[in-house]
Amino acid sequence: MEERTTTFESTILSLLENKRFSSLKDVFITMNPSDIAAVFEELPEEPLPLLFRLLPKELAAETFAEMESDHQELLIKGFSDFELKEVIGELYTDDAVALVEEMPASVVKRILNQADPEKRRMINEILKYPEDSAGSIMTTEYVDLRPTMTASEAITHIRRTGVDKETIDNCYVTDKSRILIGTLSIRTLILADGESAIADLMEPHVIYVSTMEDQESVANMFAKYNFTALPVVDAENRLVGIVTVDDAMDVIVAEATEDIEKMAAITPTEHPYLKTPVVEIWKSRIPWLLLLMISATFTGMIITHFEDALATYVILTAYIPMLMDTGGNSGSQSSVTVVRSLSLNELEFGDIFQVVWIEARVAILCGVTLAVVNFAKLLLIDQVGVSVALAVCLTLIVTVFVAKLVGCTLPLIAKRVGLDPAVCASPFITTIVDALSLLIYFRIATAILGI
Amino acid sequence: MEERTTTFESTILSLLENKRFSSLKDVFITMNPSDIAAVFEELPEEPLPLLFRLLPKELAAETFAEMESDHQELLIKGFSDFELKEVIGELYTDDAVALVEEMPASVVKRILNQADPEKRRMINEILKYPEDSAGSIMTTEYVDLRPTMTASEAITHIRRTGVDKETIDNCYVTDKSRILIGTLSIRTLILADGESAIADLMEPHVIYVSTMEDQESVANMFAKYNFTALPVVDAENRLVGIVTVDDAMDVIVAEATEDIEKMAAITPTEHPYLKTPVVEIWKSRIPWLLLLMISATFTGMIITHFEDALATYVILTAYIPMLMDTGGNSGSQSSVTVVRSLSLNELEFGDIFQVVWIEARVAILCGVTLAVVNFAKLLLIDQVGVSVALAVCLTLIVTVFVAKLVGCTLPLIAKRVGLDPAVCASPFITTIVDALSLLIYFRIATAILGI
Repeated sequence: MEERTTTFESTILSLLENKRFSSLKDVFITMNPSDIAAVFEELPEEPLPLLFRLLPKELAAETFAEMESDHQELLIKGFSDFELKEVIGELYTDDAVALVEEMPASVVKRILNQADPEKRRMINEILKYPEDSAGSIMTTEYVDLRPTMTASEAITHIRRTGVDKETIDNCYVTDKSRILIGTLSIRTLILADGESAIADLMEPHVIYVSTMEDQESVANMFAKYNFTALPVVDAENRLVGIVTVDDAMDVIVAEATEDIEKMAAITPTEHPYLKTPVVEIWKSRIPWLLLLMISATFTGMIITHFEDALATYVILTAYIPMLMDTGGNSGSQSSVTVVRSLSLNELEFGDIFQVVWIEARVAILCGVTLAVVNFAKLLLIDQVGVSVALAVCLTLIVTVFVAKLVGCTLPLIAKRVGLDPAVCASPFITTIVDALSLLIYFRIATAILGI
Repeated sequence: MEERTTTFESTILSLLENKRFSSLKDVFITMNPSDIAAVFEELPEEPLPLLFRLLPKELAAETFAEMESDHQELLIKGFSDFELKEVIGELYTDDAVALVEEMPASVVKRILNQADPEKRRMINEILKYPEDSAGSIMTTEYVDLRPTMTASEAITHIRRTGVDKETIDNCYVTDKSRILIGTLSIRTLILADGESAIADLMEPHVIYVSTMEDQESVANMFAKYNFTALPVVDAENRLVGIVTVDDAMDVIVAEATEDIEKMAAITPTEHPYLKTPVVEIWKSRIPWLLLLMISATFTGMIITHFEDALATYVILTAYIPMLMDTGGNSGSQSSVTVVRSLSLNELEFGDIFQVVWIEARVAILCGVTLAVVNFAKLLLIDQVGVSVALAVCLTLIVTVFVAKLVGCTLPLIAKRVGLDPAVCASPFITTIVDALSLLIYFRIATAILGI
């Protein structure tokens, strides 16, 4: 898609230059809102308001929702009150909420002033939910049916009210107190006899989430159950909104990115990489580098402690990096596997003994393989003495074993005590395993070599 | 959900023990197929066929599709031909294809024998597409409309044929040669006047993919465009199937896991962690450990080369782990950021200069911060001489700079030459950076200390 986007930009700029506004309009209506937004992001800022005004009302709102917040702010500042009212009116509630969360206070005030009272109430309602909760990502546009309606009454109801709904693929059945009592797919409704009652057609066993549910577990439910929408209820089981699959997919992508960043000792940021200011990238990385640098002091202390042994056998120093790296890599393999399984809900703390049992056996297999290969290499290629080779290879086996056990248990314990398992993954475990592998190395070497 | 599943198992086993079959049936129909499959996976194998027979036909097929392949095989072996025919008949084509791909040859033969000729033809058709292509994950159940139909004719057509379709939320309009000419949401159809022609209602600017498109880029299109289904066309633009959002979501989750595993030097496997045999885990990890252990030989050689310098200044050895770790962490931060941005299509090779410019500035900020903190620590806490402190801190700045440049460019180059950027990430870069940081350290130290 990248190449095509580039061509679009030049086309649009030259159409604009030649004032071919009706052709521009024709081009835009062939395009998907996400693509228009991507093209707009690449254009100079100055003609943006003009181009935006060429879009038909609905397409304009959809494009607006797809743009980055800095461009949204720019456009809003150029809008007349009337134009702002039109765009806000066309936005789905969840997109309007996302917008309000990103904008500075003065812009938010203008937005809320131009929203109609009902939408303003809904936006304020959703803003009350904690960040990353189901309530904060839900939309309030859904089709609400009553159990006493017939199928054809329901269809008439949808035809009358459904235009504004974000998804009508699933309809929700509520009783008089707005309590959720069933769901019904539009497919069932269309295929049903017109006289059948909704109460008989609906599926009464509804899977739903509460407004306070964490968005990550909501997204995992989509992945598990293949839903396209999931109803959200309040503490009294009253239907208050729905989460749609597109938002769930965004959450899954964002959460995977966050996990990956944390494992690489980066504080997650909100912006796409190329648009993040250098100082912000620095801020997201430097605390971890500092922390890990300072914790590497322990390895230094261990080496200083065994200075005499190293002075006697300088050759021992040559294998420090290999032992530390192998330990670190072995530990990361285990920790990353466990962290990912935790994210996907394939593991929980109760599985800790099963995990340790698996990792212990894998560790012995890996350690012995590495030791055998290394022993041969030490004797044949490096031509060191048998006792040095023995010290290095025994260290390998013990280090890999310890590294894998630390790697697999630490994320599980972190999760148990309410810490983030991803943060405990690679870099921390590497630091711990470095120190342990040096201790093991020097203990074994001094014992075998009799230093 | 975990706790609830555990309760279900004991309930089901005790209902089974007391032969309360009709209660079991009642319990099952309140449950989601994914949950039934999860419960079945945890039960002993022996009563499975009996329990499975209690499920109503459609629920049975949906549950079957959600089960792991070893349990599917077990069930099929227990099925009569008639039962097998029923289950296969209810399966969507994409689920049937997934099944055929997992089963041993003898079972595949039985499955294809029991499939009706039309489904058999479709399964064989899809099996021809390369693994991980759009064709291999598409389903052939979609609603096909003609441009000349009216809205009410279309609804009648859907009512007549739609029961078996995996999604009727989107309908596809094709001409006489089956060439895709438009799409139409069921929402538009329901809201339209009954007499309107499909040709006027449909959206003619269709976004589609070819059968050979990589499944990862198909999944990224779902994330970008918020689709619930995407049409798949052959080389002649004829509609051959659709990919649905649930499959796209599975691909996104699987690809993120694969990226994470590769970054941690693990060959991705297909099975969930707790179900993977120990030997298979070993196989997925040991090649990387061996490779990285052997490549760590270079660091050993560098140390041996500077043995005399180290013998004179043993204190230098104490800072080797800290320098190597800081270099490794700095490099991983950059490489992981770039790899993830590549996966999300936020970056391409052409951005390499922009990336290098960003990373160079971040590297200088990070390097200087680390050096200042470390310099103070070396003088005040470790109380080493100024020249040693200077050597260590200059090394820090240069190492962080080199590490970040290697970290950000290597994945981009890997992608360019057709290698997997994720594989080049953390462990390889750590090994390269280790060697470079030692070289830099010894060069700077010998120069400053005049060894």
